Amino acid sequence: MKLRYNQGSPFVRKVMVCAHELGLADKIELLDTTVSPVTTNAVLAGENPLMKVPALITDDGEALFDSPVICEYLDSVAGGGKLYPNGMARWAALRQQALGDGILDALILCRYEIAARPEEKRFSGWTDGQMKKAHQGLAALAAEDLSGRTIGTITAGCVFGYLDFRFPNDGWRQRHPKLADWYKGVEATPAMQATKPPAG
Amino acid sequence: MKLRYNQGSPFVRKVMVCAHELGLADKIELLDTTVSPVTTNAVLAGENPLMKVPALITDDGEALFDSPVICEYLDSVAGGGKLYPNGMARWAALRQQALGDGILDALILCRYEIAARPEEKRFSGWTDGQMKKAHQGLAALAAEDLSGRTIGTITAGCVFGYLDFRFPNDGWRQRHPKLADWYKGVEATPAMQATKPPAG
Repeated sequence: MKLRYNQGSPFVRKVMVCAHELGLADKIELLDTTVSPVTTNAVLAGENPLMKVPALITDDGEALFDSPVICEYLDSVAGGGKLYPNGMARWAALRQQALGDGILDALILCRYEIAARPEEKRFSGWTDGQMKKAHQGLAALAAEDLSGRTIGTITAGCVFGYLDFRFPNDGWRQRHPKLADWYKGVEATPAMQATKPPAG
Repeated sequence: MKLRYNQGSPFVRKVMVCAHELGLADKIELLDTTVSPVTTNAVLAGENPLMKVPALITDDGEALFDSPVICEYLDSVAGGGKLYPNGMARWAALRQQALGDGILDALILCRYEIAARPEEKRFSGWTDGQMKKAHQGLAALAAEDLSGRTIGTITAGCVFGYLDFRFPNDGWRQRHPKLADWYKGVEATPAMQATKPPAG
C-alpha cells in the first residue's frame, strides 16, 4: 500500500498510529505530499480530488480516503474488529472519532485563517467560533470513556498531539488535568512515539 | 430517536434519505435547529459540542454524530448491511460518501465566506481553492460506479440536490451530462422527494 503523507497532519498521524497498532506500518510506503487549501496539487488530485491527505492507494490500485475510511480499511486488512469494538461500544468509538476529527477540523480552520489568508482578510469572529467548537469538543472528550485502544481513543490521542504541536499555548492540560494524565500514558506508546510531528 | 435537524443541511438530508430508504423515517422525531459557524447554540452543544447538525439522540439517550456515524447506525437499527455492501464494494461506497461529503464541505465553506464574514474580510483565493476541490470532486464522482442504493450513491444524490439549492448557476449538468441523467432518476425517488430543501 502507498499513503499520501504529511508528517504534520493529525489525520495522517491517526492512520499511521492505526497502522502501527495493527502491525501494518511496514506494509505502507509513505509518499511525502504538501497540501494547501489555496494551491492545486495535480499529482494528489489524481488520487484524491479533494486534494487532502491522507489518501491510501491499496495494493489493488484503489484510492481510499478520508482518514475514517482508511483506518477502517486497515483494520479489515489486519483481520477486522481490532480497533472497532462491537455493539454499542462501536458507536461510542465512532462518536469519539467524529468528535476528535471535528476538533481537528476546527483547529485546522483556525490555522488556515493565518496560513492561507492575507492579514487584512482575517476575521476574529470566524476563529473565535471555531475555537469555541474545539474547546467544547475537548470538554466533551473529558466526559468520554477513553479506556482501551480503539479508533476513538486513537483519534483523541492525535488531537492532543496536534494541540501540543500547533497550539502549544492552548493550556488544555490546565483545563483538563484528567485528560492530561490520560495522554501521558498514550503519548508514551510505541505507535505515538513512531509518529511524532516534526519539531517546531 | 430524535434528530437535530435543519431542512437546508445536505448532511441532514443524507441521514433522512437513509431513514426513508430503511423504513425508519417515522421513528425519528425532528428537532428543528439553527446553526451558524460564528454563533453559539447552547442547546445543540449539549448533544454535539461541535454545534453541527445532524446529531441523533438514540432511544437509549446516546448522542451520535457526524452524518456517516448516524447513517451507519440507522442501517444497523434496520438490521444491517442494507445500504453498506460487503467486501471491496464497501470501500468504494465509503469512498463515494467521503467524496460527496468533501464536496459538500468545500461548498459550505464557500457559502460561509459570504454568510458568516463581513464583506471586507472575504478572500477570493479561499473560495477559488474550495470551489476547485468541489469541481474536481464532481469530475471524480462522474468516474464512479453510481449504480444501486448505497451510502455512496445516496450521498452523491444529496450533493446534486445541494448544488441546485445553493449554487443554481453552477452549471454542473452541462459539464457532466451523464451525472445529470443519473440524478434525474435519483431525484424522483420517494426518499429524495420527501427530503427536499426549502424553496428559494
